[in-house]
Amino acid sequence: MKSEQAPAEPQPPLGVAVIGYAFMGRAHSQAWRNVGAFFDVPAVQQRVLVGRHAGEVAEAAARYGWAESATDWRQVIARDDVHIVDICAPGWLHAEIAVAALEAGKHVLVEKPLANSLPESERMAQAARAARARGIASMVGFNYRRVPALAYARQLIAAGRIGTVREVRASYLQDWLADENAPMTWRLRKETAGSGALGDIASHAIDQVQYLTGDTVTEASGRLHTFTAQRPGPDGPEDVTVDDAAWATLSLASGAVASVEVSRAATGRKNSLRIEAYGSAGAIAFDLERLNELEFLDATAPAEEQGFRRILVTEPAHPYAGAWWPQGHMIGWEHTFTHQIRDFLTAIRDGTAPSPSFDEGLQVQRVLAAIEESAAAKSITVQL
Amino acid sequence: MKSEQAPAEPQPPLGVAVIGYAFMGRAHSQAWRNVGAFFDVPAVQQRVLVGRHAGEVAEAAARYGWAESATDWRQVIARDDVHIVDICAPGWLHAEIAVAALEAGKHVLVEKPLANSLPESERMAQAARAARARGIASMVGFNYRRVPALAYARQLIAAGRIGTVREVRASYLQDWLADENAPMTWRLRKETAGSGALGDIASHAIDQVQYLTGDTVTEASGRLHTFTAQRPGPDGPEDVTVDDAAWATLSLASGAVASVEVSRAATGRKNSLRIEAYGSAGAIAFDLERLNELEFLDATAPAEEQGFRRILVTEPAHPYAGAWWPQGHMIGWEHTFTHQIRDFLTAIRDGTAPSPSFDEGLQVQRVLAAIEESAAAKSITVQL
Amino acid sequence: MKSEQAPAEPQPPLGVAVIGYAFMGRAHSQAWRNVGAFFDVPAVQQRVLVGRHAGEVAEAAARYGWAESATDWRQVIARDDVHIVDICAPGWLHAEIAVAALEAGKHVLVEKPLANSLPESERMAQAARAARARGIASMVGFNYRRVPALAYARQLIAAGRIGTVREVRASYLQDWLADENAPMTWRLRKETAGSGALGDIASHAIDQVQYLTGDTVTEASGRLHTFTAQRPGPDGPEDVTVDDAAWATLSLASGAVASVEVSRAATGRKNSLRIEAYGSAGAIAFDLERLNELEFLDATAPAEEQGFRRILVTEPAHPYAGAWWPQGHMIGWEHTFTHQIRDFLTAIRDGTAPSPSFDEGLQVQRVLAAIEESAAAKSITVQL
Amino acid sequence: MKSEQAPAEPQPPLGVAVIGYAFMGRAHSQAWRNVGAFFDVPAVQQRVLVGRHAGEVAEAAARYGWAESATDWRQVIARDDVHIVDICAPGWLHAEIAVAALEAGKHVLVEKPLANSLPESERMAQAARAARARGIASMVGFNYRRVPALAYARQLIAAGRIGTVREVRASYLQDWLADENAPMTWRLRKETAGSGALGDIASHAIDQVQYLTGDTVTEASGRLHTFTAQRPGPDGPEDVTVDDAAWATLSLASGAVASVEVSRAATGRKNSLRIEAYGSAGAIAFDLERLNELEFLDATAPAEEQGFRRILVTEPAHPYAGAWWPQGHMIGWEHTFTHQIRDFLTAIRDGTAPSPSFDEGLQVQRVLAAIEESAAAKSITVQL
Repeated sequence: MKSEQAPAEPQPPLGVAVIGYAFMGRAHSQAWRNVGAFFDVPAVQQRVLVGRHAGEVAEAAARYGWAESATDWRQVIARDDVHIVDICAPGWLHAEIAVAALEAGKHVLVEKPLANSLPESERMAQAARAARARGIASMVGFNYRRVPALAYARQLIAAGRIGTVREVRASYLQDWLADENAPMTWRLRKETAGSGALGDIASHAIDQVQYLTGDTVTEASGRLHTFTAQRPGPDGPEDVTVDDAAWATLSLASGAVASVEVSRAATGRKNSLRIEAYGSAGAIAFDLERLNELEFLDATAPAEEQGFRRILVTEPAHPYAGAWWPQGHMIGWEHTFTHQIRDFLTAIRDGTAPSPSFDEGLQVQRVLAAIEESAAAKSITVQL
Repeated sequence: MKSEQAPAEPQPPLGVAVIGYAFMGRAHSQAWRNVGAFFDVPAVQQRVLVGRHAGEVAEAAARYGWAESATDWRQVIARDDVHIVDICAPGWLHAEIAVAALEAGKHVLVEKPLANSLPESERMAQAARAARARGIASMVGFNYRRVPALAYARQLIAAGRIGTVREVRASYLQDWLADENAPMTWRLRKETAGSGALGDIASHAIDQVQYLTGDTVTEASGRLHTFTAQRPGPDGPEDVTVDDAAWATLSLASGAVASVEVSRAATGRKNSLRIEAYGSAGAIAFDLERLNELEFLDATAPAEEQGFRRILVTEPAHPYAGAWWPQGHMIGWEHTFTHQIRDFLTAIRDGTAPSPSFDEGLQVQRVLAAIEESAAAKSITVQL
Repeated sequence: MKSEQAPAEPQPPLGVAVIGYAFMGRAHSQAWRNVGAFFDVPAVQQRVLVGRHAGEVAEAAARYGWAESATDWRQVIARDDVHIVDICAPGWLHAEIAVAALEAGKHVLVEKPLANSLPESERMAQAARAARARGIASMVGFNYRRVPALAYARQLIAAGRIGTVREVRASYLQDWLADENAPMTWRLRKETAGSGALGDIASHAIDQVQYLTGDTVTEASGRLHTFTAQRPGPDGPEDVTVDDAAWATLSLASGAVASVEVSRAATGRKNSLRIEAYGSAGAIAFDLERLNELEFLDATAPAEEQGFRRILVTEPAHPYAGAWWPQGHMIGWEHTFTHQIRDFLTAIRDGTAPSPSFDEGLQVQRVLAAIEESAAAKSITVQL
Repeated sequence: MKSEQAPAEPQPPLGVAVIGYAFMGRAHSQAWRNVGAFFDVPAVQQRVLVGRHAGEVAEAAARYGWAESATDWRQVIARDDVHIVDICAPGWLHAEIAVAALEAGKHVLVEKPLANSLPESERMAQAARAARARGIASMVGFNYRRVPALAYARQLIAAGRIGTVREVRASYLQDWLADENAPMTWRLRKETAGSGALGDIASHAIDQVQYLTGDTVTEASGRLHTFTAQRPGPDGPEDVTVDDAAWATLSLASGAVASVEVSRAATGRKNSLRIEAYGSAGAIAFDLERLNELEFLDATAPAEEQGFRRILVTEPAHPYAGAWWPQGHMIGWEHTFTHQIRDFLTAIRDGTAPSPSFDEGLQVQRVLAAIEESAAAKSITVQL
C-alpha cells in the first residue's frame, strides 16, 4: 500500500458511469472524485451519473463532479466512452443492469447485497464468470472489507495471531426504525427490498464473518422478526412486509460457530457493526462506531500482561492508512468506498480478479436464503 | 435501602450452616461474616461449615469465621441451633440436601442453578412451596440480581424508562477453557455437572433476561457446542461430555426477543456477563467486568443530546450502594453475595417470600431444558 | 446548517491559491476540492498551488486538482484571477505573505499558529483590520473549532448547559518525538519553528480553551521542557532548540482556571487532543482520537441518573454533520478543513467577518508568549 | 503473594486499637476484620475502637467487630493488650497520637496525609525513626499503593517496561463540593483541615507519582484556588479557608516532569484518580473509577501492533489478586485497606520496615508545602 508504483506507460482514462444518485450514489461519487488524489490508480473520468429524475440527477451530477447526467441506463452502458459501470440502484435492478453491462463488456461494481433473490444472484454470478473469461472485472461492494481496522484484523487472523478461530460474534445494530411512527418506504416492502435488516445489514455481518476468517458458512439456523407491523403511508397505515431484526447461528466449514444479530430498531445504536472473533491463541474486537480502532488480544503473552489492546489503525504499515494522513489522524466512513475503488481499479489495471467477486456475493446470498428458510421453519438448521 | 429500621425487639441470633467450602462456600462465608456490619439485618451466628474432607473444612471454618466444621450435612440440618442452610455443594447434591433441609424446617438458600435436572428442580420447587406454607423461606442464588447496576436497571425498566422492551442481548463469556490443555474436572462430565456453560453461566444470563424485563421466556431455539472434545485426566485423555459454549434465541411472553450466547472458551474474556436491552424509549447496557457502571440511553431526549450515559451506580439513591462507601468508591464481585444475604435475612424477618424463589429457579431450568432439547433437534424452536 | 440556501444570483467563481503543498497544503487541497459537493457555498476554482520545488509542486497540483502550479508566491498574489490566498507555508513566512496578500486585496486564510513571533502576529492583525475595512476577509486556521463535537460543545456551554465554567483541562499529546533517534528537522529549530510543542499544538489547546468557554486568558504560569537535547542531522548530532513538551496554568477573565499540557513525546498517544470542562451544572469531555464523540454530563438530572453520556455527534441537528452522511456514519480528521472553508466562504459571501480572526489568533500568540516568558522566569505568573 | 508461608511457630494475637470511627475508621475496621480470611498474616484481635461520642462509638464497635469501645485514646495506648494503634482521627490529631503511641511502644499506622503541617510531620518522622531503632513499625496509609493495578504498574516501571519515564500526569477529581450550597464542614477550615483538596487528595496523587516512578520530587510550581468562597453554616454563611482545587508542575530527580491537578468541584467525577506515565519505551494509564484495570502500552512492539491494552489486574500472578477470587472477579475500593494491613502485619512479623514510612509521608508533606509556598508567590518554582 505504501510504495505504489505508477503504471509503466500512461493509459487513456477509464470512463465511469454511476447508476443511482441517492445515498450510495453520493458515497460512490465521493470516492471516484478523490481516489486519484491519494492512490496511484489508473486515471478515471467521471463521465455520467444516471438517475430516473432528470432534474435531480443533473443537479447531483454537477455537485459531485460528473461531466454529464442521464436517465436511461441502457443508453449509458452502450457508450464507448464508458468502461466501468458502478451500480448504486436499488437491489431489484441489480441483476438486469449488471448482466447487461457485463455483456456489453463493461467492468461492473455493484452495491451489496448482490441482488434481492437467489436466482438473480446466480444469474449475475454466471454472467460475471463468463465476463471474467473475456477480461472483464466484476465486484460486489462490501465496503467494510476496506475499513483499515478490519483489513488488518483479517491479516492478523490469516497470520495465525489468534490461532484457530472458534467463535465469531457479529452484530449490526441501527435504530432508524426504532420510532414506530417512522414512515413506510420501499425499503420496508418485500417486493422492492427483498428483505429488511437481513439483506441490508446482515449481509455485511455475514460477509465479515467469512472475510475475516477466510472460512465458509455451511449451515444456518435463523429467525426474523418485525416489531412494527404497520407504518404510516401517504394514504394511511401500510403493512411492513420485511423484518426489522434477524438472528442466526452459523456453522463454518472449519468447525467454528458464528452468531449474527442485526436490527434496525436497536434504540441508541446508530451504525454499530460489532465483530468479535475468539481463537485458540487470541481474539479481536471491532465496532464500526469507532472505525479507526481495532482491539487485539494476544493470548501467547504471559497471563498477567494480556489485555485487549486498542490499536489505532492509522499507521503507515496498516492497510490503506499510509495513503492518507499521519498516524492518529482519523479517517471516516466514506473512505472505505475510496479504498474499494482503489482495489477495483488496481485489479483492472493488473488483470487480476477483484474481490469480493460476484461468486462471493452469491455465497452471502445463499446464507441469507438459508436463514430465511430456517426462519420459516421454526429455526430448524438448514444446510447450504 | 437507606433508612433501614432495626426490628422492634431483639431476637435470638439465627444459626447458619454453609454446606460446601470451595469457591462458592468461600464467597458465601465472606457475605455471612460481613452483612451485619453494613446492613440492618437479623443477627446471625456462623455456626458450622460443612465439607467432605475433615481437615480442610476445619481449616476453612477457622479462616472464614465459622464456630465449627462438620462432614455430615444430615447431622447438621438436624441441629436445633441451625436455622438457615446455605447450600454451596455441587449441583447434583442440591435436591437431596435442599428437600431434606426444608422438611427439617430450615430456611434454605441454594446456589444456582437450582439443580442438574428438571425433575430434581421440580421436586425442589414443590418442597419449597410446601415449606413456604409453614413459614419457611427458600431462595436460589442468582447473585447478579444484587449487582447494584443491574438492580437499578430493573428499576429503570420497570418504571418505563426504556419503554416497551423489544430486544435483549445477553452474553456471558469466560476463557478458562480456552486452553485445550486445561485438565479434565467434574465440571466437564455430564453426570456430575448436568451441563457445561449452559447450566453454569447461561443460567445467569437467562435469569437476567427475565429479571430485568419482568417477563417470561415462552420458547427457545438453541445450540450447544464443545470445542475441545477430550482433555487430560490423571490416567490419560478423557471425554468432555458437556458443552463449552451455548447459543439461544428466546421468545418472551410480551413479544420481545432475546439472544443468549455463553462460552467458557472466549479467549481474553475473564468474566464478561454483558447485557443490552433495547426498548421503544431507551436502552441499557452492562458488563460485569465493569460492575459498578450502567449505561443508560434516554431516547425521549432531543436526538442531538442522546447518548449512552455511564452511570456510576454508587450513589446513596442506588440499590444497596448507600450501605457501603461514598459515591465513586467501588464495590467488588463479592458484595453481590452480601446483598443477597441481606435480602434473604430481611425476607425471613418480615415473613415475606424471598426472590428468586425456587419456582423462579425452576423456570430458568425449563429454559435450559428447552435449549438442550432444541439443540438435540437441529435448533428447532421448542415451546416451554 | 441544514437548510442552506443557494445565493440569490450566480456569481463568478472565486479563484483560490494555496501556498504550500506539504502536509497542510494537502489537507487544504482536499477541502477545497470537496467543499462544494456537500455545502452550498460560493463556487470556487482551484487556480494554483504554490511551492518551492517546481517539479514536486506540479505533481502535487495535478494530483490534488489544481489547474496550475507556481513557485513564486508574489506573482500569484498579484494575479487578478486569484481572490483567495490560503497560506500553508511554514510559520516564518506567514507574516510576509499574509500582509502582502491582504494589501493586494485578497481574502486570506492562514494556518495556525498565526506567526512565529508576537511582533509578526501584531503586524498581521493590524493588516487584517485594515483589510476588513475594505471588505477583505481573513481567518486563522484553528480547524478543530470545526470538529462537530467541539462546535456542539461550545453550543452547550453557551446555552448554559454546564453552568458557570470553573475548570478546563486541555492536553494535546503526540508521540512522534518519543523516539530519541527521530531525526532533526526544521520543526526542531527555534529560528524556523519559533517554538516546539508550544506553538504547534498548545496553540490548538489554548484556542479551544477560549473558544469553548467564550472566555479570555488573562494570566499564565508556564513551563517548557526538552527531553531529547540533540538529534541526528545529516552531518552528525544537532541541538534541538525548541520544547518537546509544555505545561501551563491559565487564569480566565471569568475567574475560571485552565490547565494545558502538551507533548510530542507522549509514547502511545498519536493525536490526542483531550478537553474537559467542568461547570456548576455539568461537564463535557472530548478526545480527538474519537472525534465523532462528545461526552456530556448534565448535573441537573437526579444524582442517580447522572453520567457522562457518549453522544455520537453525527445527527442532522449537530453542527456540520447534516451535510455529510446519515447518523452514525463517521467523518474523519480531514473534514474539519472542509468545514473551515465552508465557513470562510460563507462569510465572504455574506460580508461577515470570519472567525477565528487574526485578532483571535493574536490573542493565542499572546498566551503563548506569556507562557514562554513565565517559563523563562521559574514559572512565575505573567499578566497578558 | 501466592505462596504465603505461615510463621514457624504460633504467636499470641496482636491486639489492635483503631482511633476514629467515621469514614476511615469504618474502612479500616473492615480491613482488620477480613484480612485473616484471605492472607496468611499474624493473628490479630480487634480490641478497641476509640471515638469521642461514647454511644456512637459503642454502636460502631459492635457493628464492626470490635471487642470494646473507648473515648480516651491516651488510656487505650497505655494498655498492654494493645500492640497496634491505627490512627483514623482527623489530621490535626495525628502528630500527638502517633508520637505518644510510638513512645508507648506501639506499632502505628496513620491515615494520610501524615499531618496538617510540616513541623508536625517532621516530629512524627523523627519519632518513627527512633521507634524503628527499638523494633517498632510505623506506616502512613497511602492505600492506593495497594490497588493491584497500581502495584503492578510499579512493577512494570521498575522492570523497565516503559523505559525512562519522562512525563507523569496525575489528577484526582471529585465533585462533592461542586454544589455551591453544600454545607460548611471542618474539612473546609484551614485550622482543622490544614488544606483542602491539596492535603486530602493531591497527597495521594503526589505519593503515586513518587511511588510509581521510584523517584523524588525536587521542585514545584503550584496554584491553589477556591471556587466557592462561602458556604452555609448553622448560623449563616461561613468563609471557606482552604482550596477547592490545586495544580502543580513538579520536577523529579531523574529529570522527569510531573503534572498534578486535583479538585473537589469537578462536576461528574466521583472519585477519579487518574495517572498516566509516559516513558521512552512505553506508557501506562489508570483510573480509580475502574480500579481493576491497568492500561499498558509496549512501544517495543512493531508500530502496527501497538496499543494501550486493558489488563484486568485480577490474575493470580498480579499483586494481591491471587488471595481473592478467580480472574475477572472484581474487587472494590475497600480491599486496598485489607492489602495495606496485610503488608503492615507482614512487616511486623518479619521485622522489616513497612512502606510508606513516615519519612515517605514527610516527603509528600514537603511537596505539599512547596506547592503552597509557590501558590502564595505567583507560582514561582520552589526548591524542596
